[in-house]
Amino acid sequence: MLKSIFMAGNTFGTLFRLSTFGESHGEAIGGIIEGCPAGLTIDYAAIQAEMQRRKPGQSKIVTQRKEEDEVQFLSGIFEGVTTGSPIGFQIINTNQKSKDYSHNKDIYRPSHADFTYDKKYGLRDYRGGGRSSARETANWVVGGAVAKQLLKDIKINAFVSSVGDLFLEKPYQELDFSKTETNDVRCPDETTAKKMETLIKQIRKEGDTVGGTITCVIQNVPVGLGEPVFDKLHARLGQAMLSINAVKGFEYGSGFCGARMKGSEHNDIFQEDGMTKTNLSGGIQGGISNGMDIYFRVAFKPVATIMQNQQTIDKEGNASEIQGKGRHDPCVVPRAVPIVEAMAALVLADFYLLDKVVKS
Amino acid sequence: MLKSIFMAGNTFGTLFRLSTFGESHGEAIGGIIEGCPAGLTIDYAAIQAEMQRRKPGQSKIVTQRKEEDEVQFLSGIFEGVTTGSPIGFQIINTNQKSKDYSHNKDIYRPSHADFTYDKKYGLRDYRGGGRSSARETANWVVGGAVAKQLLKDIKINAFVSSVGDLFLEKPYQELDFSKTETNDVRCPDETTAKKMETLIKQIRKEGDTVGGTITCVIQNVPVGLGEPVFDKLHARLGQAMLSINAVKGFEYGSGFCGARMKGSEHNDIFQEDGMTKTNLSGGIQGGISNGMDIYFRVAFKPVATIMQNQQTIDKEGNASEIQGKGRHDPCVVPRAVPIVEAMAALVLADFYLLDKVVKS
Amino acid sequence: MLKSIFMAGNTFGTLFRLSTFGESHGEAIGGIIEGCPAGLTIDYAAIQAEMQRRKPGQSKIVTQRKEEDEVQFLSGIFEGVTTGSPIGFQIINTNQKSKDYSHNKDIYRPSHADFTYDKKYGLRDYRGGGRSSARETANWVVGGAVAKQLLKDIKINAFVSSVGDLFLEKPYQELDFSKTETNDVRCPDETTAKKMETLIKQIRKEGDTVGGTITCVIQNVPVGLGEPVFDKLHARLGQAMLSINAVKGFEYGSGFCGARMKGSEHNDIFQEDGMTKTNLSGGIQGGISNGMDIYFRVAFKPVATIMQNQQTIDKEGNASEIQGKGRHDPCVVPRAVPIVEAMAALVLADFYLLDKVVKS
Amino acid sequence: MLKSIFMAGNTFGTLFRLSTFGESHGEAIGGIIEGCPAGLTIDYAAIQAEMQRRKPGQSKIVTQRKEEDEVQFLSGIFEGVTTGSPIGFQIINTNQKSKDYSHNKDIYRPSHADFTYDKKYGLRDYRGGGRSSARETANWVVGGAVAKQLLKDIKINAFVSSVGDLFLEKPYQELDFSKTETNDVRCPDETTAKKMETLIKQIRKEGDTVGGTITCVIQNVPVGLGEPVFDKLHARLGQAMLSINAVKGFEYGSGFCGARMKGSEHNDIFQEDGMTKTNLSGGIQGGISNGMDIYFRVAFKPVATIMQNQQTIDKEGNASEIQGKGRHDPCVVPRAVPIVEAMAALVLADFYLLDKVVKS
Repeated sequence: MLKSIFMAGNTFGTLFRLSTFGESHGEAIGGIIEGCPAGLTIDYAAIQAEMQRRKPGQSKIVTQRKEEDEVQFLSGIFEGVTTGSPIGFQIINTNQKSKDYSHNKDIYRPSHADFTYDKKYGLRDYRGGGRSSARETANWVVGGAVAKQLLKDIKINAFVSSVGDLFLEKPYQELDFSKTETNDVRCPDETTAKKMETLIKQIRKEGDTVGGTITCVIQNVPVGLGEPVFDKLHARLGQAMLSINAVKGFEYGSGFCGARMKGSEHNDIFQEDGMTKTNLSGGIQGGISNGMDIYFRVAFKPVATIMQNQQTIDKEGNASEIQGKGRHDPCVVPRAVPIVEAMAALVLADFYLLDKVVKS
Repeated sequence: MLKSIFMAGNTFGTLFRLSTFGESHGEAIGGIIEGCPAGLTIDYAAIQAEMQRRKPGQSKIVTQRKEEDEVQFLSGIFEGVTTGSPIGFQIINTNQKSKDYSHNKDIYRPSHADFTYDKKYGLRDYRGGGRSSARETANWVVGGAVAKQLLKDIKINAFVSSVGDLFLEKPYQELDFSKTETNDVRCPDETTAKKMETLIKQIRKEGDTVGGTITCVIQNVPVGLGEPVFDKLHARLGQAMLSINAVKGFEYGSGFCGARMKGSEHNDIFQEDGMTKTNLSGGIQGGISNGMDIYFRVAFKPVATIMQNQQTIDKEGNASEIQGKGRHDPCVVPRAVPIVEAMAALVLADFYLLDKVVKS
Repeated sequence: MLKSIFMAGNTFGTLFRLSTFGESHGEAIGGIIEGCPAGLTIDYAAIQAEMQRRKPGQSKIVTQRKEEDEVQFLSGIFEGVTTGSPIGFQIINTNQKSKDYSHNKDIYRPSHADFTYDKKYGLRDYRGGGRSSARETANWVVGGAVAKQLLKDIKINAFVSSVGDLFLEKPYQELDFSKTETNDVRCPDETTAKKMETLIKQIRKEGDTVGGTITCVIQNVPVGLGEPVFDKLHARLGQAMLSINAVKGFEYGSGFCGARMKGSEHNDIFQEDGMTKTNLSGGIQGGISNGMDIYFRVAFKPVATIMQNQQTIDKEGNASEIQGKGRHDPCVVPRAVPIVEAMAALVLADFYLLDKVVKS
Repeated sequence: MLKSIFMAGNTFGTLFRLSTFGESHGEAIGGIIEGCPAGLTIDYAAIQAEMQRRKPGQSKIVTQRKEEDEVQFLSGIFEGVTTGSPIGFQIINTNQKSKDYSHNKDIYRPSHADFTYDKKYGLRDYRGGGRSSARETANWVVGGAVAKQLLKDIKINAFVSSVGDLFLEKPYQELDFSKTETNDVRCPDETTAKKMETLIKQIRKEGDTVGGTITCVIQNVPVGLGEPVFDKLHARLGQAMLSINAVKGFEYGSGFCGARMKGSEHNDIFQEDGMTKTNLSGGIQGGISNGMDIYFRVAFKPVATIMQNQQTIDKEGNASEIQGKGRHDPCVVPRAVPIVEAMAALVLADFYLLDKVVKS
C-alpha cells in the first residue's frame, strides 16, 4: 500500500504567518513569525508569562510533567524592537524521557492519533506523538504572544466555562477577567472554580479524565476585520480553534442556541451610535467584525490517556491491553486557556494586517 | 478614515482549489476549479441536479424567488472528460430585479452585512449583498458537485436535523438517506419532516424566520485524509461550514456533548479489524480520517430578513424603520443541505489529492 | 507508468492575483482578477485596445489567423467602478478551426510541448496546445490592462529591440515610445523598424521564423516596491517574463554585460537627491525599487512552427514527417510587446499592494 | 511618509518548501524545510560539505571573513531518517563583528540595498544588511542539500563559466565536472581556471571587484517536471536564480543567442527514442522537462563593496565619502556555485513532488 510521504499544513495565516516545526522528543521545537511589523517593542516577560500559563506542572490539577519552555528569539528583533524581518524562535526540549513511552511502540492507544499516523505515514514517532503532540502548542503560544503585543488595544480573554456537567452560568459581562488567573482551573468565578477543582481532583483520583469548554471574549476590536467569502473572521477563528488538540466543537455568538430561535428574537437592533442593543451576532456580521464584543465557545473532549487499563490492538491487529500509567492531565481545559487566546490572537493579527492595505 | 480596498479570501483549497467571483446582481457568477485530475468523465446531469437542489423557488417552504442556475462549463473538459486543466464555469444572473432592493440603499438591515461592508469598504452593492449574497454558494455547489464525482466511493449525505425546537431524535444509523429528497424540508424521517414543515409554514405566516441544524455523514472515507497540525481534517471542515452564510456553530463526533463526558466513556475502543466499537471521535483522530464514518453538525441562525417592520438606523446614524417585504426564506436549512455537502466534498477532494503524493 | 493528473500553477500574485482558465479550442478562456482595489474607474476602451494589440491578424507581418478577443466582464465592477470584489471575465473562443490541427493528433511537433504534455499527462488536446497555447496570454493582457489602470502614474513601455541579428542600437533614453505603435514591428525607431519589417517578410517568404528581443522600461516607480528575499522585484519580473511562451532569457539593468564589468565601473553613485548618476542597477537594489527607471530585456526564440517539412516521430516513436502549413507568426516579438507589458504590470500591482500595508 | 511594515516572501516552494529567518548579525539564521518525504536517510556529512563550499574564507581568492556554518537539525529526523515532519534547522552566528560596520550607519553604500531598505522600512540593520545579507544563502544551501538527497538520481552541476571577459569556451559536454572543486575558481577547465584566478587576484590587488557567470547543468531529470502556465520549470528556475544576491540575468537553453536564430535552425528534431538530436530547448518544452539535459546560465554583477573610496550620500542627503576597507570578495561567482545548485535543487524537488500526485 502506498503511504503518504509528508505532512503539509504547518503554516497559519496569510500576512501575519506562523510556521512551526518540532516534535516533543526532538532537539527543539520552534517556528518563524512572518509579517510582524517593524518597530514593535517586544515585552519578553509577557511572552514568557504566556509560556508559563501553558506549561505543564504548574498546579495540582494538571500533569506534573515538567517542561522548560524558555523561548529563545533568534532573529527579527534588534535592541528589543522588531525590524519587520521574520522572527525565528526555538524552545529546547529539555525533558525528553523517551523510556516513558517505549511500551507504546507497537500498540494503538484508543482515541489517540497512533493508528491514523501509522496508516497514513507508515511510521510514527512513538515517543511522544510527533507532530500530534500538544507540545506543538507551545509554538502557537509564542506566536500568539507576539500577536497580542501587536494588537495591544484589543483585549482577548479566555476562561474555563464548563468542566464535565459543571457550567459557569453567569453571562460573561458579569465576570471579572482579572480573576481568571487566581485559581488553578482558570474560571473567573470563584465559587464555580472551587467546584470545578473538586470535580477534577475526584476525576483524577478515579484515574479518569473529563472534558470541558472554554469561552473566549475579544473586546475593542475595530470594525472591519475579516474577509467576506472563505476567510470570514469566524471561519478562521473556527479553523484556529479546531486545530487545537482535543477540540470537538466551536460556536460563536448565539451558536447552537441561535439555531432554535426566530429571526424576530435573534436580530440585533442598531442603536444610533452604530452599536447594537443585543449581540447575538457575536460581534461579526457577514464575516466581518462590527465593533461589538466577539465571543465564542470551544468544546474539548476528555483527555484520551486515562490511568485505567483499556482493551486495544497492536500494529498487527492483535488484541492487547494498554496499562494506565505516567503523568497526564485529568482535564485539559485549564491549560488550554492560553492556547485558545494565542490562536485567536494569530487570527486577529492576520486580519488586522489584511485590513491595513489602504489607498495612499 | 482609511478604508480597506479589496476583498481577499476568494479561493478555497490547496491542490483541489475553487476560486470564485460574482455578485447576485452582476452579469454572472462563476469560478475556476483547479486541480481536478484528468480523465474524469463528467456527469453534467448530476451537477445540474445539485444546482436544482440549491435553487430558490423549488418548494412551498422556501423563497419563491426564481434563479436560473444553469452552469456553463468553459474549459478543462474535452468530449465530456476532464483534461487536468482548470475548469472555468459561469452561471448567468438572469433574474436581477434591482428595484426590489432600492429601498435598502441607505439603510442598515439588522443582522445583515450592510453595516460592516459599508464601514470596511466604504461602499456597498445595496442591490443584493455583493459578495455576501448567498448566491455565491451556487458556485460552491458547482465545485462540490465536481468534487463528489472525483470522490465517487465516498458517500456524503447531509440532512436537516432540527428546525427551531423540533429535533430529529433518531441516530443517523437508523435513517434512510434516500428519503432526504422526498420532502421539502430535507429531513429523512417522514414524521419529523411533516412537523418541521408545519412549523416552517406557521413561521412564515407570522412573517418570521427560524433557525435549524444540518447533520452531515460521510461514509467510505479512506484512512489517512487530513494533515496533523493546522490542516486537521475537522479544522478544514469547520472552516468550510463556517464559511456558509448564517452558520453559527460546528461540532463533529461527540461535539459539545463530548465536553461533558469522562475519558473512560469517550474513548473509542479498537476492534481487531482496526475499526472502533464506538465512534465518538467522529471518524477523525489527530486530524486524520480513521476509516469510520465522519459526522458533524452545523448550526444555522434564523434568516435575518423578516416580513415584520424593524427599527434600525441609516448611513448617517439616524433612527429609521425597515419595512418587511419581498420574497425570502422562512428557514434556510432545507436549501443549505446541498451547500453543506458541497463544501464537505471540496475539503475531502483537497485532502484526497494531498494524500496522493506518493513515492513511486 | 503513473501519469500526473493535473496542472498546477494557474494563479499569479499574492494580493493582486490573476487566476486563469481556458484552452484555445474550448468554449472560452477567462479568469479572475482578485485584489483590485475598490473605487477604480475602469476604462474599457483602454483594455480593449490592449487586447487589440495582442490579437493575431492585425498586420501583414503576423499570423493572419483571426481571433475575436472581446473581453466580457462579469463581476466586480458596478456602474463602471470597481467594488473591490473579484473581477471575473471571459473571452469567447469564436474561431476554433479544429480541423486545421487534426493532422497533429499523433505526431510530436519539434520544439513544441506535444511530447512533454503527452508524457506528463497521458493525454493532450491536439487541437491547439491546451494550456500551452499562446491564446492563454490574452487572459494576461486583461489582467495587465486592469493593473495598468491601478498603477496609473507608472509608465510601462515595451518595444522590440532586436529581430534576428538586427538590433536597435540607441539607448532607450533617446527613443520616443509614442512611436512604438506606429509600425507593425513595434520598434520605436523608424529606420530600424523598417529593416526589421523587411527581414521578417523575407523570413516568412522562406517559410521560416526568427527570434528577437523585447526591452521594457518602467518609469515613475515609487521607491520601495519588492521584497528582499525570494520575492525580489526582479525575481518576480523574471518569473513573469519566463512564463511567456517562447521566452529563453531575462536580464535587467546591466544584465549579462554587467557580469563582464568591474565594481568601480558598475556601482551607481548617488546624487544628493537620492537618484543615481548611472543606472546599471536597473532601478532595483536588493530586490526593491529605488526610484530610478526599471528596465529589462527578454529573449524570445523563433516560433517552432515553420512552413517547411520537418522530420519527427509519432506517439509510438516511429519516424514521421510534419508538413508545414497553416497560418503562423514568422516572428513573435511584435505581438509579444503587450504581453510583456501586461506581465510587468501584474508584478508591479502586486508589490504595490504589498507595500501599502501600513501602520495607520 | 508611511513606511512598509514588514518583509514578505520568506518562503520558497509549494509542496517542498523552504521558509527562512535570520540576519547576519542576529543570534542565528535558520529555517524550516517542509514537505521532505519520510524515510530519507540523511547524509549529514554531505550537507556540511555543501556548507563548506559556500563558506567564506576557504581560499585565497574569496573573502577571508570566517563564518562557522555548522548546521544544527532540530526536528523531522529520527535516528538519521526523515519522518515527513517539518525539518527545523539553525546555524548559529558566531562571528558577528558589529563594530566593523558602524561607519556605515548613516551612509548609503553605492549599489547596495541601504538606500532602498531605509526608504521602504524606515529602519535598517546597518551591521550587515539584515535580510539582504548574503549570509541568508547559507539557509538555502541547507535546503538545497536536503533536496539533492531527495533527488539522488538527478545530477546538478554548476560551475564558473566566465569571470570578467574571460570565458570558458568549451561546451559543457566536454567538461569533467569532477574537476570543478579542484581549483579555487570552481571552473572545471584547468587552463581557464588558472587565467581566471590570476585575473581575480589582480582585481583584488586593485581594490576592485569583477562580475562573472555561472552555468548549471542538470542531468537525469525525468520527463514531466514543471507546470504549464505560471509555474513553468524554467520560470521557477529563473525566479530562484534571480533571488540570489548580485544576479542580473538568467537564460536557459539557447538563451539570448536563440533570439538571433531561425526556427529551422533552432528546432530540436526528435530521434526515435524520444530524445532530440540537438538541445537548444535546454531540456524544457512548454515549461515541462523533456528528459534532455537542462542547462542555464546566470549573470552576476561585480560585488558592490570595493576597497576604493567612493562618493556617496548620507541619510540626510549630504554628500559623503565611503572608505574602502574590510574583507570582501573580489569576485562572488566561485562562492555562488553551491548556491546556484542549491536553488536549482529546491525547484526540482518541489516539481518532483507536484508531479508525484497520481491516481492510485
